[in-house]
Amino acid sequence: MHNLFEIDDWKIIENGFDSSKQKQAESIFSIGNGGFGQRANFEENYSGPSLQGSYVGGVYYPDKTRVGWWKNGYPESFAKVLNACNWIGINIEVNGKVLDLNKQTILSFYRELDMKQGLLIRKFRVRFESGKELEIESTRLCSMADDELAAIRYSVTPINFSGNVKFTPYLDGKVMNHDSNYDEFFWEEDSHKVDLKKGYVCTRTKKTNFTVSTAMRFSFWRKDELLDIHPNTFSKDFYVENNFEHFLEKGTKYTLKKYISISSTLNHSEFSVIPRSINKVRDAYVNGFDKLLDDHISAWKNIWDKADIIIEGDSTAQQAIRFNIFQLYQTYTGKNEKLNIGPKGFTGEKYGGATYWDTEAYCLPFYLKTADPKVARQLLIYRFNQLDKAIENAQKLGFKNGAALYPMVTMNGEECHNEWEITFEEIHRNGAIAFAIYNYIRHTNDESYLMQYGRPVLFAIARFWAQRFNWSEDKKAYVMLGVTGPNEYENNVNNNWYTNYLAKWCLEYALTVNEKITDSSFERLSLAEITSWKKLTASIYLPKIEGSNIYLQQDGFLDKEQLTVNDIPENQRPINQHWSWDRILRSVFIKQADVLQGIYLFEDHFDLNTIEDNFDFYEPKTVHESSLSPCVHSILAAKIGRLDKAYELYLLTSRLDLDDYNCEADEGLHITSMAGTWMAIVEGMAGIRVFSDRVVFRPVIPKNWKSYQFQILVKNKPIKISVSHHEFEIENKGAEDLELFIFGESISIQSGNCYTAHTPKIKTV
Amino acid sequence: MHNLFEIDDWKIIENGFDSSKQKQAESIFSIGNGGFGQRANFEENYSGPSLQGSYVGGVYYPDKTRVGWWKNGYPESFAKVLNACNWIGINIEVNGKVLDLNKQTILSFYRELDMKQGLLIRKFRVRFESGKELEIESTRLCSMADDELAAIRYSVTPINFSGNVKFTPYLDGKVMNHDSNYDEFFWEEDSHKVDLKKGYVCTRTKKTNFTVSTAMRFSFWRKDELLDIHPNTFSKDFYVENNFEHFLEKGTKYTLKKYISISSTLNHSEFSVIPRSINKVRDAYVNGFDKLLDDHISAWKNIWDKADIIIEGDSTAQQAIRFNIFQLYQTYTGKNEKLNIGPKGFTGEKYGGATYWDTEAYCLPFYLKTADPKVARQLLIYRFNQLDKAIENAQKLGFKNGAALYPMVTMNGEECHNEWEITFEEIHRNGAIAFAIYNYIRHTNDESYLMQYGRPVLFAIARFWAQRFNWSEDKKAYVMLGVTGPNEYENNVNNNWYTNYLAKWCLEYALTVNEKITDSSFERLSLAEITSWKKLTASIYLPKIEGSNIYLQQDGFLDKEQLTVNDIPENQRPINQHWSWDRILRSVFIKQADVLQGIYLFEDHFDLNTIEDNFDFYEPKTVHESSLSPCVHSILAAKIGRLDKAYELYLLTSRLDLDDYNCEADEGLHITSMAGTWMAIVEGMAGIRVFSDRVVFRPVIPKNWKSYQFQILVKNKPIKISVSHHEFEIENKGAEDLELFIFGESISIQSGNCYTAHTPKIKTV
Repeated sequence: MHNLFEIDDWKIIENGFDSSKQKQAESIFSIGNGGFGQRANFEENYSGPSLQGSYVGGVYYPDKTRVGWWKNGYPESFAKVLNACNWIGINIEVNGKVLDLNKQTILSFYRELDMKQGLLIRKFRVRFESGKELEIESTRLCSMADDELAAIRYSVTPINFSGNVKFTPYLDGKVMNHDSNYDEFFWEEDSHKVDLKKGYVCTRTKKTNFTVSTAMRFSFWRKDELLDIHPNTFSKDFYVENNFEHFLEKGTKYTLKKYISISSTLNHSEFSVIPRSINKVRDAYVNGFDKLLDDHISAWKNIWDKADIIIEGDSTAQQAIRFNIFQLYQTYTGKNEKLNIGPKGFTGEKYGGATYWDTEAYCLPFYLKTADPKVARQLLIYRFNQLDKAIENAQKLGFKNGAALYPMVTMNGEECHNEWEITFEEIHRNGAIAFAIYNYIRHTNDESYLMQYGRPVLFAIARFWAQRFNWSEDKKAYVMLGVTGPNEYENNVNNNWYTNYLAKWCLEYALTVNEKITDSSFERLSLAEITSWKKLTASIYLPKIEGSNIYLQQDGFLDKEQLTVNDIPENQRPINQHWSWDRILRSVFIKQADVLQGIYLFEDHFDLNTIEDNFDFYEPKTVHESSLSPCVHSILAAKIGRLDKAYELYLLTSRLDLDDYNCEADEGLHITSMAGTWMAIVEGMAGIRVFSDRVVFRPVIPKNWKSYQFQILVKNKPIKISVSHHEFEIENKGAEDLELFIFGESISIQSGNCYTAHTPKIKTV
Repeated sequence: MHNLFEIDDWKIIENGFDSSKQKQAESIFSIGNGGFGQRANFEENYSGPSLQGSYVGGVYYPDKTRVGWWKNGYPESFAKVLNACNWIGINIEVNGKVLDLNKQTILSFYRELDMKQGLLIRKFRVRFESGKELEIESTRLCSMADDELAAIRYSVTPINFSGNVKFTPYLDGKVMNHDSNYDEFFWEEDSHKVDLKKGYVCTRTKKTNFTVSTAMRFSFWRKDELLDIHPNTFSKDFYVENNFEHFLEKGTKYTLKKYISISSTLNHSEFSVIPRSINKVRDAYVNGFDKLLDDHISAWKNIWDKADIIIEGDSTAQQAIRFNIFQLYQTYTGKNEKLNIGPKGFTGEKYGGATYWDTEAYCLPFYLKTADPKVARQLLIYRFNQLDKAIENAQKLGFKNGAALYPMVTMNGEECHNEWEITFEEIHRNGAIAFAIYNYIRHTNDESYLMQYGRPVLFAIARFWAQRFNWSEDKKAYVMLGVTGPNEYENNVNNNWYTNYLAKWCLEYALTVNEKITDSSFERLSLAEITSWKKLTASIYLPKIEGSNIYLQQDGFLDKEQLTVNDIPENQRPINQHWSWDRILRSVFIKQADVLQGIYLFEDHFDLNTIEDNFDFYEPKTVHESSLSPCVHSILAAKIGRLDKAYELYLLTSRLDLDDYNCEADEGLHITSMAGTWMAIVEGMAGIRVFSDRVVFRPVIPKNWKSYQFQILVKNKPIKISVSHHEFEIENKGAEDLELFIFGESISIQSGNCYTAHTPKIKTV
């Protein structure tokens, strides 16, 4: 596969400008700090293809639903992630000509995403029609030390002339969402003010009334000397600017340092957002760029110290895993309980909503093993807080007695999605939330959470499943009709194995949890529920291929023409961009793990042979056209010793956006799947799985890696793992002893000790 | 069931005004003439709830597709039936107060649709705030004698005063489609002119460039005396009017006669539409209203002489069947080969498109038995003319080698529909077109049509089916995956029995037709096709309930909870307005005949017992929420001797719109299903079926009817049928002898002779 940008252990590098890659680059070089984020758009004007995007966490607008044909049960609106005030803008003019990389001759161009330090850096040289040449260097950061701050250091050096250059730093709140259903503008102005070297724009979302104040200040320097300038000010609705012309000496670097603070009513009162942003930007300005930079880099250092995965011998893989970890932390830091992990983070507005099942199925395992357990707990309580809405959602569809169906996409707990086969049918999402509760408990044993927050969510989800099955007189079993599994290339199928299995497990787990209740203040399941759920779970239909241990994706799957991905001509991939929808639906091809998703989640329920047989049946039919697909397959491939396959799929998941495999990186990155990439190493290569009764380790190493190492938390105990072809080492860095099953053998590692053993040779087919 | 309006053998009558019924009445009292049509909106201003609608046959606009989520294969636009120039407008003012039934006190109100004469009549009296009372009488017609003419006779009588009244007859072309996807205005102005007592507005559709010229003239009368008036003229874009005040004497009737001509480039050149409409309206004006009225009534008399069905003893049934026949003829007269039969005719704009499978499955049988065979032939050639587009449509979905998929909805042959489960999957429509060819041939033996026009259509459709089946290694049979049957309350199902059966039949019929080809200039099927189709048809999977003769609607149908319609609480009907879409999909409930549609089409393939068993299995699960449903069930109920059921369903189909069973008559009428109503009497009650090898008669009569009689064409031979409880009579009115099977007995009736026999007693459960 062709690499879009250059390979480097710590950096993404673009050398030379290619406007056809600009939108992809804008996504890939995005920066953010958990509170807000910004695509790698240029500071200066750019008239070429671009997707301007600046996003503020948790701020959304309920965009009126657009459908061709209304179905009962569709939501009235879709919560859109909002494209917010453009705070990066700095226009440059030379003799009335605006700097624009789409217009001037580009003599050199270098862009770098420094993942170690969390910086977006550009350095380029242009020649104007007049022959005048400028060199620009810019460094941009969204402070990881303070999630309301950002800054830009923007330097201009006239190369072959001395003369006037005009600088116009500005804020522009008149930003449209590209995905607005009815070309509606989602913002109204609250107020704006501009003064010398400062200004703010405060805008408010229509309907939801989120108020966001964006304040700027700036200073101007000749080398290290602060210059006294007297800019003109200009403002209009949604917009403030300063502008000034300055005489620049040939060969001398002049630097504009622009400080930004963004405050919103997600976190502060309506009354205080404007003064807060003004005060914060003043402090940043007073403390200076270097202080901001130091704090920011040091915050990143803290993250990397704990979260880094070091891969020696394979820079392609090394760069990719760091990119995934970097983007995950830029999106969600666990600091703010009101936030969740949107599918595109702060890198695009497509899909909208802040919460999908991705959070529970993909991101939660990452935070469980890399962060304080309160982060995972907070993500789970986020769903607890939306339980009422999930119950309402189920009621709308005809469910009763407190059954809950969590939404496919949401911001405030209300369903946003409007595609019946997903909205109403892709209900396995409900199971992922139940599983996340279980997963959290087996990592933490946090019984107080379970009783207070987990239990009501779990019971409500189980109540949904209990009503969603119906008795089939024909099969003499409980069946689940009309669902869409994780494989969205099948719609409205009956008895999706994954959903049935997950639902059955969920009902059983709810019964188990019910038995654990000791505090009488907690609601218990009714006797009628207990009786009927036991009857139900005893007779749930789980389709299987007769005479094999292969679980059947859904009823009728074997009626399809049994092809493999190799039967698809290369020029018809991805099929979702080349085939009609009905052809995709009728085909055997699988978008993402479905049966295998279940086998991954419940790995401890299946023997190796079963895992292998199912993998060999389904993986060759899988086109991996969901970002959530390759990671799960990579983990299972490693598990069954298919190391080459595991590595191939690891590259696919880790470089999905970096190399834009599915031709859609221009719209933003696949943030949530990045946690899956991380799992592909931790759970796949290192084979670390935390089950309820044991923790297992089965480290393997791809042949072209020299070694890899990382630290994680296992049941909240810090350990460090190093794996080479020769040996592997597990260091217990915690205060307590560690009990593990390493390649099936029970091992105890005392606090502070290391366990070392030979890495086994694995077949690599 | 409550009747919306009064019962009368020949009229629909509304006595007393109820604004909450206005939109329903506007649909039900619609008039048209096959060329254009008009909802029963008021001539004078009306500010209450109303759906203004004037439609011109064949004129459409490709409205940009609106969907929530794009699927590959969706069409770019939807051909919308266009709401065109408002030609009925006559405003009335008294002392500056505009006559408006939503504002003045209504002293009396009478509205009548005279179906015998094809007239919309109103008579009402209002009192203005000033105390002044007016009586208005209006008579409106769309000429059945000339499908470019219409006229209104609008009389005003001041009841309790003498004084000035202002009259403003106008044309207004600035009409928006209510269903415009993006609030787009579909028309642009060509030109307009206004002069004394005349004017025209000529508008042109954007993109499609249909030009429609609407011309008016009017005269003004005191009783029978033509008055010399000098109106003011006024015009603006899209609009012309005359206005004049006249002193009206108390108790004297003053009449404005407004003549209209509408010409479009569907039938005439761009150059001639304006002069044509002007000349035609002049002629109408010169000949006068009474001449126009006489010609119109006499045209309707000719229709009724042939098409009427007389039911004695049941005015509710009598009114209903005439309403259905009346609306059918208003929509399609068979005169213009460029037209087809839109689902709402000229009574509303919902759904759009001019052609659905309704034409072939429902309307064609009506015209085959009531009109010259050239009308049915013309409807079939309409599809032949769109074969290229049907092939393109199939290509878009991935089909090859000249396979054709006719669109779900179309104007010009291109698919308009954009709901994947219908657009791509409701492919049985293709089979209906093939069956219509067969049906036409068995009625007419028109071999020249078959070879020249039917054959290529049939072969292309058969090629589609051949590619649409795939071999199931699991079932050891050819299966058809991912379809939607006629029952749209199931989506994306496998092996819909109806579709599989129809497709199998179609392939076999194509092979039969291929064998008939004698003229070498006609393309024959290739040997490869013949071989593979024979192999295919020998092993097509047709699901059936084991140990019974019940055909299974689709794979997995028996997994559903087997309820009947009686299990649905009355306040949840219709379920499509009360249940979420997923609940409908998962339920066993059937929107419209599916297996039974197949049994109806191929009645001669099944024994009575099979028909009965399938009816008893499916009908109790059927909610009849498609207008196309009750008629088919009524026919089958009559066939198996369930006369009460047949009658109940007859009332449901025939009064569907009249009594607005499905709460949607406000949006327009269900025109195409009206042919089904007619079939419910002819094929159901009278039991007349034309099979390829025989014509059968099995007349029965509902217990509350005294008698019924009608004329039809059987294989183009005119016969008259009269049925009473005592006896039935079949009169051969043609020149040739008639061979029939009457209750299974072969009977020959000589030209001019009658066959009479006792009507058998039938069980009426």
